[in-house]
Amino acid sequence: MFQDPPYRPTDVRMKGFPRRWTVRNCIDWIDKQTPECLSETISLAKAAGRVLAADVTSKVNVPHFARAMMDGFAVVACDTSGATTYNSLKLNVIGQSLPGNPFSGEVSLGHTIRIMTGAPMPAGANAVLPVEHTVINDEVILVQEEVAPGKHVGIPGEDIREDTVVLQRGRQLRPQDLGVLSSIGVSDLDVVKRPRVRLIITGNELLPPGTTPENFNITDANSPMLSALIERDGGEVKHPGIIADNPNSILDAFRTDAEIIVVSGGSSVGQEDHAPRLLAEYGSLEIHGVAMRPSSPSGMGTFDGNLVFLLPGNPVSCLCAYDFFAARAVRKLAGKSADWPHKVITLPLSRKLVSTVGRTDYARVNINNGFVEPIAISGASVLSSTTRADGFVIVPEDLEGYARDSEVTVYLYE
Amino acid sequence: MFQDPPYRPTDVRMKGFPRRWTVRNCIDWIDKQTPECLSETISLAKAAGRVLAADVTSKVNVPHFARAMMDGFAVVACDTSGATTYNSLKLNVIGQSLPGNPFSGEVSLGHTIRIMTGAPMPAGANAVLPVEHTVINDEVILVQEEVAPGKHVGIPGEDIREDTVVLQRGRQLRPQDLGVLSSIGVSDLDVVKRPRVRLIITGNELLPPGTTPENFNITDANSPMLSALIERDGGEVKHPGIIADNPNSILDAFRTDAEIIVVSGGSSVGQEDHAPRLLAEYGSLEIHGVAMRPSSPSGMGTFDGNLVFLLPGNPVSCLCAYDFFAARAVRKLAGKSADWPHKVITLPLSRKLVSTVGRTDYARVNINNGFVEPIAISGASVLSSTTRADGFVIVPEDLEGYARDSEVTVYLYE
Repeated sequence: MFQDPPYRPTDVRMKGFPRRWTVRNCIDWIDKQTPECLSETISLAKAAGRVLAADVTSKVNVPHFARAMMDGFAVVACDTSGATTYNSLKLNVIGQSLPGNPFSGEVSLGHTIRIMTGAPMPAGANAVLPVEHTVINDEVILVQEEVAPGKHVGIPGEDIREDTVVLQRGRQLRPQDLGVLSSIGVSDLDVVKRPRVRLIITGNELLPPGTTPENFNITDANSPMLSALIERDGGEVKHPGIIADNPNSILDAFRTDAEIIVVSGGSSVGQEDHAPRLLAEYGSLEIHGVAMRPSSPSGMGTFDGNLVFLLPGNPVSCLCAYDFFAARAVRKLAGKSADWPHKVITLPLSRKLVSTVGRTDYARVNINNGFVEPIAISGASVLSSTTRADGFVIVPEDLEGYARDSEVTVYLYE
Repeated sequence: MFQDPPYRPTDVRMKGFPRRWTVRNCIDWIDKQTPECLSETISLAKAAGRVLAADVTSKVNVPHFARAMMDGFAVVACDTSGATTYNSLKLNVIGQSLPGNPFSGEVSLGHTIRIMTGAPMPAGANAVLPVEHTVINDEVILVQEEVAPGKHVGIPGEDIREDTVVLQRGRQLRPQDLGVLSSIGVSDLDVVKRPRVRLIITGNELLPPGTTPENFNITDANSPMLSALIERDGGEVKHPGIIADNPNSILDAFRTDAEIIVVSGGSSVGQEDHAPRLLAEYGSLEIHGVAMRPSSPSGMGTFDGNLVFLLPGNPVSCLCAYDFFAARAVRKLAGKSADWPHKVITLPLSRKLVSTVGRTDYARVNINNGFVEPIAISGASVLSSTTRADGFVIVPEDLEGYARDSEVTVYLYE
């Protein structure tokens, strides 16, 4: 049923990596790369979560007119001097001001108008008397409390002052930022363009997502996972499909207009691992072999000026290597914080977590009764361990692990 | 220039709320509402962040065949008994197994095949000898270490067992979940449908987003902000535009196929506040007036079986009332956790934070040098305070505030 390929023992190159880089080396290398963030102009309605590519300066005051901050009566403040519930003072009501529908006349001594929150203050008035401190009697009100000049009046520019920078370049836009930008009349804005990320999924054993695994083929788990991760980090995924596992097809896929290339599979030193050799020959393979568990057969470099990340095909290693390395580059190029985007929580370990000095570990854990419990797993390759886990703990390279009851930081999966 | 509307003092109903509900009352009311989560079938590629509407059971084992977990040689384990570097044992290499390209023959005593990680185990072999423990000599290898039966062999079902539930109903799908679902051959899945949220933005003073504020009109800040918040919570925004501030238009807008209605503006007890009156008359106004700051003129109820939230038009109050109340309903109907979605951090206060027993406060704060610093603001309505703030602290209704140096939980804006 299966044809064996010709076996040539001299091709065998399976002796492991000549050296291992540390995770720190890798992060330092990523941080030294300086591809520029690109920018584009988009409409305000689509800007949530995007990163400003330029400062935004307001051309207007917000509010741009004096307005009432309470429901009540616009008064000349000195008309209320000495008013109390025992000494109420009369004012004649001569009109009203509503939001978008102001009073066109002037308020002079002895007069007032009804005014609603947000409505423009009428000429002549300089304070708002809250309705609670009045007795309303047809076209006359009785003032029962004194108000100082300026009381309950919002002044122009109180929220945002004309010609000031409202939000700075680099800001990742929050919902309320969109509100502020809208309030100053912004319709389009310059944001950092999402970096394009070319996925190169290789493996002759792989069936495309949506296919039932059969015979000796398995269904690609990495492209749906990586696509979701890249979206999370602000990248735009380019993934035309699984790439045949041969040098020409892979080299061809390296030639892309994407700023970042993420290769899944064939990242090690075996004879079938084409990507590292191609990168070394036609681009630059800067790092290959990392002192970490899982994901040690990871690599990185550049091709035509684009960043390339070589991730192991094993899904857990792929997830881990993406999150340690490629994710950082995607976020940086998206203008976002380089830091891990996960929610974190610090709790004691229920039992010791063993590692080795010189190696960084990515340990999947659960949180039970306020304790962090490392997940017992038979194989590092078990992807379901990352769905059973609540998150992961990183054991840095300078530790042999953590003792029981040590407080550790858990990065929560979400 | 402006026409004053006729002034009728008998219309004035500005005397405040007859009673105030607590924030706790409001949350209890929301949690008692039981509109059902709807479901829909979507493709795996679009499922990131969505919530499963049904358990997913695997129809296959993952892996569905025994496979090598290391690069090396597939052996009959007893062929390696006693092997060390001083006592190496010879095996004849008769072929190889690659991922997706297995060895079709059988491995018998005295023989081996080269095998790559992920490749199917050949018949006859029951262990993988890692390449590091061999000396390769043309078509013969020298075995230098003993391996036990089963060593470095991934067994069928090791990751996922056939007929078991892989992910449960209610699960919000993580990137790695998509990987797991793909690995079992899922192409489409049933997820909770995003609740439709009808935005009703009212206010005669409002200009649509993208317009420069002028005269006595202001630009709507709330619809861009609320749209982003609703998206964050998993809702689908329905917002055909600003609604004229009159009873007929608002009543018309209430008649919708959306499961949740969010009204911004006109939420108080003034004569221009139509929405609460309409809700009381044609639907059910359950809560109106909340003991909180800001956002006290908030309300909630139902109309035609849909949930209605009345939010103040003031943008800060609108943000706060949305986040306390409407957001919770949107998340629940989206099948998500009802809890605040913000990242939180606990730090001491740099100065005291004053509140009042019986009232819940939403205090915007900054984080400086490890301390939480309440933001000094002139007016509650200043939306830019929420862009200058790093987050907010909730002072619950049973406290008069927090003393300086109290540890408080900050909900971080993002």
